Amino acid sequence: MEGLAKIDDLGKPRVVIVGGGFGGLELAKSLANAPVQVVLIDKQNYHTFQPLLYQVATAGLDEGNIVSPFRKILSEQANFYFRLAEVTSVNSTEQVVETSIGLLRYDFLVLATGAEPNYFGDAAMAKNSIAIKSVEEALELRNTVLSNFEQALQLGDYEQINSLLDFVIVGGGPTGVEIAGALSELRTHVFPKDYRELDFKEMDIHLIQSGPALLKGMSANASQKALDYLHQLGVQVWLEARVKSYDGYTVTLNSGQQFITRTLIWAAGVTGAPIAGLAPDCLLPGNRYAVDEQNRIQGYDNVFALGDIALMKCQAYPEGHPMVAQPALQQGRQLGQNITRQLAGQAMQPFVYHDKGAMATIGRNHAVADIKLFGREYHLSGFIAWLAWSFIHVISLVGFRNRIAVFLTWGWNYFTQDKGLRYIIGQVKKPMLEAEVAEKAIV
Amino acid sequence: MEGLAKIDDLGKPRVVIVGGGFGGLELAKSLANAPVQVVLIDKQNYHTFQPLLYQVATAGLDEGNIVSPFRKILSEQANFYFRLAEVTSVNSTEQVVETSIGLLRYDFLVLATGAEPNYFGDAAMAKNSIAIKSVEEALELRNTVLSNFEQALQLGDYEQINSLLDFVIVGGGPTGVEIAGALSELRTHVFPKDYRELDFKEMDIHLIQSGPALLKGMSANASQKALDYLHQLGVQVWLEARVKSYDGYTVTLNSGQQFITRTLIWAAGVTGAPIAGLAPDCLLPGNRYAVDEQNRIQGYDNVFALGDIALMKCQAYPEGHPMVAQPALQQGRQLGQNITRQLAGQAMQPFVYHDKGAMATIGRNHAVADIKLFGREYHLSGFIAWLAWSFIHVISLVGFRNRIAVFLTWGWNYFTQDKGLRYIIGQVKKPMLEAEVAEKAIV
Repeated sequence: MEGLAKIDDLGKPRVVIVGGGFGGLELAKSLANAPVQVVLIDKQNYHTFQPLLYQVATAGLDEGNIVSPFRKILSEQANFYFRLAEVTSVNSTEQVVETSIGLLRYDFLVLATGAEPNYFGDAAMAKNSIAIKSVEEALELRNTVLSNFEQALQLGDYEQINSLLDFVIVGGGPTGVEIAGALSELRTHVFPKDYRELDFKEMDIHLIQSGPALLKGMSANASQKALDYLHQLGVQVWLEARVKSYDGYTVTLNSGQQFITRTLIWAAGVTGAPIAGLAPDCLLPGNRYAVDEQNRIQGYDNVFALGDIALMKCQAYPEGHPMVAQPALQQGRQLGQNITRQLAGQAMQPFVYHDKGAMATIGRNHAVADIKLFGREYHLSGFIAWLAWSFIHVISLVGFRNRIAVFLTWGWNYFTQDKGLRYIIGQVKKPMLEAEVAEKAIV
Repeated sequence: MEGLAKIDDLGKPRVVIVGGGFGGLELAKSLANAPVQVVLIDKQNYHTFQPLLYQVATAGLDEGNIVSPFRKILSEQANFYFRLAEVTSVNSTEQVVETSIGLLRYDFLVLATGAEPNYFGDAAMAKNSIAIKSVEEALELRNTVLSNFEQALQLGDYEQINSLLDFVIVGGGPTGVEIAGALSELRTHVFPKDYRELDFKEMDIHLIQSGPALLKGMSANASQKALDYLHQLGVQVWLEARVKSYDGYTVTLNSGQQFITRTLIWAAGVTGAPIAGLAPDCLLPGNRYAVDEQNRIQGYDNVFALGDIALMKCQAYPEGHPMVAQPALQQGRQLGQNITRQLAGQAMQPFVYHDKGAMATIGRNHAVADIKLFGREYHLSGFIAWLAWSFIHVISLVGFRNRIAVFLTWGWNYFTQDKGLRYIIGQVKKPMLEAEVAEKAIV
């Protein structure tokens, strides 16, 4: 195996980007006309539009409509190379990254590896819960929800049935709120038709939030409206509550309260996904790299980090930027320009974040949005916020084809009140229950 | 576990259908207004439109567009019950089927379990090749093709690279012809843009057919045209050739000729998927149940078989009907009417197959069709046959939503000459090569 051998040396400086999320992909694009070679390395061969993963998990969208293969996105970009591999460590002295398929020299290295679920050291939680950070996890959640109901049909015991019908979602950020809303709509409009033998009044959806309000970081108005909408949808929201333990069956809160569920969705927090080899002191708590205003990792000249893995403390954001798509996109674009500037002998410019606001959807016709426009902030909610949310998400998707497909699917789902993608293909989180078949009664 | 307990006894005769392919699903539908309880048991929770699996395998269609959950298709049918389970055996004396989730009594039992790939006892072939009988297999093939090219980029050895670029398809029926054509179009229009570092003149597609012509059972005109089209597309067709062995790397034909490939697609033959418990003498060679003209399994009063698993020898078809969708659909519809008749004290009617013809597509604008209309047979080919093929497949899909989605996707693919679903999600047939990394050269 010659590993990366087919990456020709173009005789130009090489920019190696690790991770093709919002930031890494935007950076690759913004270097299209720069006098460099761009090598993107990712563990997947596609970019994932993470904000809509929860809709894949709740049978609303096909996974194919929210991903785009990197090679397809950038097939016209002559200086772009992609390799499907994992980067295992960085040797900054030699200016080489070690990957699962060989060693690669770099002139500029950019770490854009994003974040992964933070279980705060709770191994049982990591094992028993489902997160929604990747397409594979989203599909696993969809399969698990559907498989739960199929299994519930086979049981007689009240607690056992409820352990399959009830869901606990930990984390009251956008993902937690959105998945709670989507499950609740399935409970009302879809599942009762599919599973006539089950009583969906028994299906409880619990949303656990550690703080005093949902959607931390959004306006008080947005938090309150989101809470109101979830209550209207019958979601049981537990504020100022923390999960103490979960063994795959019983959830125990700090207050001592317990819920029985086989399905706990973990949307409570993330931690950076750093790479071995850099000086330990450039890694801040939360596993994020300390970067300056040019996204340069502290102590390095030509090693950068951007997006969720980077923590840029600046006057306007002393705690760093929010870990969402916009800072990653903007940093990616700016870093591309900065690398181009440096190669032209010009100084790099500091990054200035343009906060466009934040939004979350709770269900059909119901969303909240804090939109920043021309220096003012507008608080929208209800139908108009839902329209804005839908519009912005459709136009932000990568690829014209995906935009059309999602638009049409949403139109269809809206008017039929249906979510049709209720098939179990691929992995299920938990295998079928292996309870005793006490007696082989013939039915 | 109480297994099937929630299947209420409706006080009506119970029809248990095993398998929800074309025949089983059509039967369930045709019993909608009959005074019976219908219980469908399948290992998947969805119906698969098998004729388009090859397009899922070649990145042309999302799997979500060719499957429909049974519960969704029949959510309005009050007498319909579905259970996700496997039927392990039949006890015809007690009138009970044994399933993975319990024992179920029946009044009428219908086996519609279809067919599975026939490897003619060659265990190495079964292990090393990929078939395309299920969505999971189609996705596995897609992932494997894409992963092959990603791996080929990491190699320097000519034979090793070619083992990944070359494909051998065994079986010159519709599936083999269609997959060969689709791979060839990807080779011309899609892959060279994605993998600029690979030389796609080196990508060989071999189609191995045991008989003297392709598309056995279709007209001589169709066979010849299909061969011509494949030649135009650069597919290497080997007629009167049989595969002797395949070890995962080297394919050896009976003639002694050898090909090197890591990807052999097995579309060569099928065998019935029977269920234990019935008298052995009702099972004919090919593992198909001998049925009379009412689809009753030989020697049983209330046990039926239909579709691929049934072999109905009659005057017009002394060797039985072709193992395709139409006989299954027509038998399913007729059996529903026959069960209704019997319950009303009327005699069952014998099955008469209405052959509408056969068709296969070889690629953009190229298909062959033998269409039987008003007692005459028309041989179409080229663009008009391709339009007919497309139209008939779109309207035959289950669900209005799928019809629209496939129509739009095909329109998109047609005008862009692109097949966008080139992402690797889920299983790959073969893990990444573990060849020695001889020296850790820095690239």
